[in-house]
Amino acid sequence: MPPPPTIAQQLAAKQREISVAEFFERNRQILGFDNLQRALLTTVKEAVDNGLDAAEEAAILPEITVEVAKEREDRYRVAVTDNGPGILRREIPNVFGKLLYGSRFHSHRQARGQQGIGISAAVLYANLTTARPARITSKVEEEDTAHVLEVFLDTQKNQPRVDSEDVVLWDRAHGTRIELELKARYVRGRQSPYEYLRGTAIVNPHARIVLVEPDGTRVTFERATTDLPPAAKETLPHPYGLELGELGFLLKASRRPTLGEFLAKDLQGVSARAAKDLLERAGLPAGSKPVSVQGAAQERLLAAMHDTPLVNPSADCLSPIGATLIKRGLRNVLGDLKPEFFAPPVTRPPRVRGGFPFMVEVGLVYGGGLPPDQPVQILRFANRVPLLFQQGACAVTNAIGNVDWRRYGLDQKGGSGVPSGPALVLVHVASTKVPFTSEAKEAIAEDPEIDKELTLALQAAARHLRTHLSRKSRRDFASDKFEIILRILPKLAERTSRMVAKPVPDLTPVITKIMDVVNVETRIAAEAKFVRVPVEITNYTPRPRVLELFAEVPPELLARATFEPAPDGTDATLGRVWWTLPKLLPNGRTTLAASFPPGTEVDANDFDWYVAGIDEAHILGADPLPGDWDVRLPRTIVEAAEIAAQEGAAAAGSDEEVDYDAAEASADVRDED
Amino acid sequence: MPPPPTIAQQLAAKQREISVAEFFERNRQILGFDNLQRALLTTVKEAVDNGLDAAEEAAILPEITVEVAKEREDRYRVAVTDNGPGILRREIPNVFGKLLYGSRFHSHRQARGQQGIGISAAVLYANLTTARPARITSKVEEEDTAHVLEVFLDTQKNQPRVDSEDVVLWDRAHGTRIELELKARYVRGRQSPYEYLRGTAIVNPHARIVLVEPDGTRVTFERATTDLPPAAKETLPHPYGLELGELGFLLKASRRPTLGEFLAKDLQGVSARAAKDLLERAGLPAGSKPVSVQGAAQERLLAAMHDTPLVNPSADCLSPIGATLIKRGLRNVLGDLKPEFFAPPVTRPPRVRGGFPFMVEVGLVYGGGLPPDQPVQILRFANRVPLLFQQGACAVTNAIGNVDWRRYGLDQKGGSGVPSGPALVLVHVASTKVPFTSEAKEAIAEDPEIDKELTLALQAAARHLRTHLSRKSRRDFASDKFEIILRILPKLAERTSRMVAKPVPDLTPVITKIMDVVNVETRIAAEAKFVRVPVEITNYTPRPRVLELFAEVPPELLARATFEPAPDGTDATLGRVWWTLPKLLPNGRTTLAASFPPGTEVDANDFDWYVAGIDEAHILGADPLPGDWDVRLPRTIVEAAEIAAQEGAAAAGSDEEVDYDAAEASADVRDED
Repeated sequence: MPPPPTIAQQLAAKQREISVAEFFERNRQILGFDNLQRALLTTVKEAVDNGLDAAEEAAILPEITVEVAKEREDRYRVAVTDNGPGILRREIPNVFGKLLYGSRFHSHRQARGQQGIGISAAVLYANLTTARPARITSKVEEEDTAHVLEVFLDTQKNQPRVDSEDVVLWDRAHGTRIELELKARYVRGRQSPYEYLRGTAIVNPHARIVLVEPDGTRVTFERATTDLPPAAKETLPHPYGLELGELGFLLKASRRPTLGEFLAKDLQGVSARAAKDLLERAGLPAGSKPVSVQGAAQERLLAAMHDTPLVNPSADCLSPIGATLIKRGLRNVLGDLKPEFFAPPVTRPPRVRGGFPFMVEVGLVYGGGLPPDQPVQILRFANRVPLLFQQGACAVTNAIGNVDWRRYGLDQKGGSGVPSGPALVLVHVASTKVPFTSEAKEAIAEDPEIDKELTLALQAAARHLRTHLSRKSRRDFASDKFEIILRILPKLAERTSRMVAKPVPDLTPVITKIMDVVNVETRIAAEAKFVRVPVEITNYTPRPRVLELFAEVPPELLARATFEPAPDGTDATLGRVWWTLPKLLPNGRTTLAASFPPGTEVDANDFDWYVAGIDEAHILGADPLPGDWDVRLPRTIVEAAEIAAQEGAAAAGSDEEVDYDAAEASADVRDED
Repeated sequence: MPPPPTIAQQLAAKQREISVAEFFERNRQILGFDNLQRALLTTVKEAVDNGLDAAEEAAILPEITVEVAKEREDRYRVAVTDNGPGILRREIPNVFGKLLYGSRFHSHRQARGQQGIGISAAVLYANLTTARPARITSKVEEEDTAHVLEVFLDTQKNQPRVDSEDVVLWDRAHGTRIELELKARYVRGRQSPYEYLRGTAIVNPHARIVLVEPDGTRVTFERATTDLPPAAKETLPHPYGLELGELGFLLKASRRPTLGEFLAKDLQGVSARAAKDLLERAGLPAGSKPVSVQGAAQERLLAAMHDTPLVNPSADCLSPIGATLIKRGLRNVLGDLKPEFFAPPVTRPPRVRGGFPFMVEVGLVYGGGLPPDQPVQILRFANRVPLLFQQGACAVTNAIGNVDWRRYGLDQKGGSGVPSGPALVLVHVASTKVPFTSEAKEAIAEDPEIDKELTLALQAAARHLRTHLSRKSRRDFASDKFEIILRILPKLAERTSRMVAKPVPDLTPVITKIMDVVNVETRIAAEAKFVRVPVEITNYTPRPRVLELFAEVPPELLARATFEPAPDGTDATLGRVWWTLPKLLPNGRTTLAASFPPGTEVDANDFDWYVAGIDEAHILGADPLPGDWDVRLPRTIVEAAEIAAQEGAAAAGSDEEVDYDAAEASADVRDED
């Protein structure tokens, strides 16, 4: 009889390899399938993300249909159809029935799917909860018929098992349809397929998305543009942020004959000159074979890469949303709430972490019908995909919580955490490799590089908010006064006149003296043939004014605008335009207008108005010209100086040069003269 | 020349299988390696968790040494040595150099490591960031020498690569040591190895843990007990919460000849009778082969399993911390802060989700030096492992936020979210399969079953808090009054007496009349040979009292206690003990005492005191007996009735039977007589 096994032997006997599918079967929460509501959303999300990626890769304007039908209590059938290029018959089983299989994992290019897990995870979940296969229909343009396969995922082997196969006619040129039956729950509202698709439509206005809900309701998110976003290009890894392991892998995989060529052709950002510098620093000959660089030499090479100045990573592997779409997207979401302020969206330049480029965009909206005493709403996006779960675990939320919003005008208990106030923040992180906290891709992991960019972008947006709020409080003060004077004074005068039985005097000069502001007023008038934005400038000060008016407009709007009168200058890149106004005598008024082609989406918030030639205390509806403009026109300066000189002469010894408060205080007295 | 490839062909050509190690290499944040500080902590954690699991599996009292040494800026050497049974030579490469390989994934038993990923992930990270192998030393008791292997993890194949191998003498009977060199950062304080090991020591008082920090500081967490926790037993899956996929897997894998035997022997909780019921419901013959139950039959079987009442899952596969250790652990953490209240720890009964048993434990502490205006501190544990990251993403935090703590006496903005106040909540989730949100095992995923248990446990703890706070406010009121009367009245009397040049009268009867309470006062006296808890009961009411005194004590403390005088009854299971006190005349006093062996950890908070035979308005320092006790002694009832009858007679026509307020109001007047 053999001796009984020792403890170490007993333990060793239990050691086993675990199939990746088995692992995820037991840990389905990691894939986003922890409860019935989330399982349905994750399934829709993975299928739609794949459809969008496929269409965009083939330069096709995406058209996606999502159908959700109830089979019985807690059991739904989900079908997602895309108009992508279709999938070759031989690839269908692996794409849908094998975890860790895909085309985008090894590519250096922004894509929604990157892990080769998502859709197969949905198939796995459907298999497990209803024991039904996934039904895939796919047609490529070159074939006349579509293939229909029923696929199971064998969890013990992580391999697809095709249950049945057929060939059918399909009335579309190309595309893919996946049908799944799964244990699930359908909801509307927060964290629903509807919310996810609406979020997707906001940042993918080139896609047409149709949702057919279990009760038959059909929601269509029409495309807002037929321009495909510029295709994100495949790029090479950038040396910044590379680590020893990744570098070793690249060196080993390189087919270049020399280290010099490796630096020039397998990486981006290394110029010939930088390569020379870098090799010198590392003490390595340019002619050595890449694969021979190992151990200490590899470490020296890496250190040299991080110490040598290189060309910044190119952004063309990324597909940011862009300022216009962020603003338009926010306007779509918030239309009914009529926010008072849309901060100019902030787009940070691309950066690199671990060799992967990324960039951060931030939009911020304030006021209107947004709830004033709730936590600020956060819309998170990663590679144009809305993130609906795990907000508390996301680097975006964390970065928002680490900004001291009290400095920028929002409430924030203790100066950290999500602030409160009538605001909404949109954050988009685009990268060839977004570091998600789990395979469910619902939250972005903490990363010092991303965190830095998030913070800078959020602070920039927050500064816009602060400026707006301080302008607003100034304006509110001035415009309250304006209102009172324009409304009360005439009534007072009328009553007094009646009492003393005298005619009502002309109050204009009095009002002007008290007001002492130049008022800039913008309206939007949508007329039949075009959209017109008229601006009225009225001089309610007691002296003549020579002013310049400046506007900042999104460049793409500026490109479509016609101005009347013609401006004195424009800067198409920065979206700036300016005029010297005709000399305005007291109570004088002049009008400008911008016109746009019909259908242009434009509103008063698209324009920021600035005035030069007058102290900021005397402007209402515009701000003093910021220091970075530097476009003052010499004529105005000369004329303004002339007026000042004339006035100085006229005012000497008179009480004309009263200050604001004194004028106000003495107004009543003098008016009664 | 062949035609150029179509788009579908181009896309197909890019499809590739992704190695699981490659996947995690690119997504190391999922494994807990997203930044240098976290990488070090995760490495320590995985090695220590493995060491504890190994020792406990072999019924060895764990002894773990963690050494962290700085190699250079951002580079550390971590060595973790355990006294486990050691690992057989042939298993070492796979255990440390292959992801998804392990002994605990397929077991139905509570363990720290379950995924077969942790320690190999640390090896992968070390390989990648420093290009150095992991150095493993392991010795099993039966061999004279230890094996030393240097191991790399080949990410493209997810296979170990042994770089060097040696056999050495090692001065211990058995154990394993892993040394890793990695890019990392060492910190103390929050989210540090120190905090992790301290948390581990709190809930694993049977382990001895030594930490040697980079500056040479040696911290020892001595074991507080030499009792190993009862070993968590291997169990069978329970039908509750099973899903179609898992059931299919079990049926397919079963070696039982019949479905009847499958139900009885491959599952737990199915009695013979239940099996019969269940098969009838499902319309399946007991004799059918398990593997033959497929499709619709499988669905019927599952439905019948969920509809048939079964024996609840057994808890012996779980290893809860237990009320005593939770209290002791909290006292360790909070010793200096002297909290005023330790809620009796709540241990929920075991439940099942997806076939996996789990249970929830909650401890709550209030007051003392805990900061009054900060968010409540949360200590999270899963399978006796502290969770230090991702608090915001954790089901525990979510459940805490969903309790309306305002109802229980804590501040909570809007009635949801983590409340504020001088409190700390400890939550432990124990399960044969904890659903973590990611492979880094830092947060528990949302799950309706777990959420329900968390909520019930938190509410139970919160109710204790509410009771405490309302008692406290009653006591504060009464004891303020007590203080005032005992301090002020004698002074007043003394002064008045001096003024009128008369001797100071005996105030006792007056005080008694005004106070009208029975005071129960507990102290802790640690004497040389034993620990004594004396209790003094004083009758400050103007009538004789026959009372019963009841105490609730943790059962394990009760088991060690000697009482003087001997109690009239005890309930060892519920930890209850009671006495009939000798008749107490007005101003009469009696003393009780509990004694414990030297070294017993006991404090005033371990005792809850209740009194029967008196209205709650007249007790100070104890509470009226709750309704669920039902242990009133007949003698007391008879005697109390006698006293009441005598008093009734005496009081007829006198003013003796004044109510509390009237006595107080008239006290001064009568005292001046």
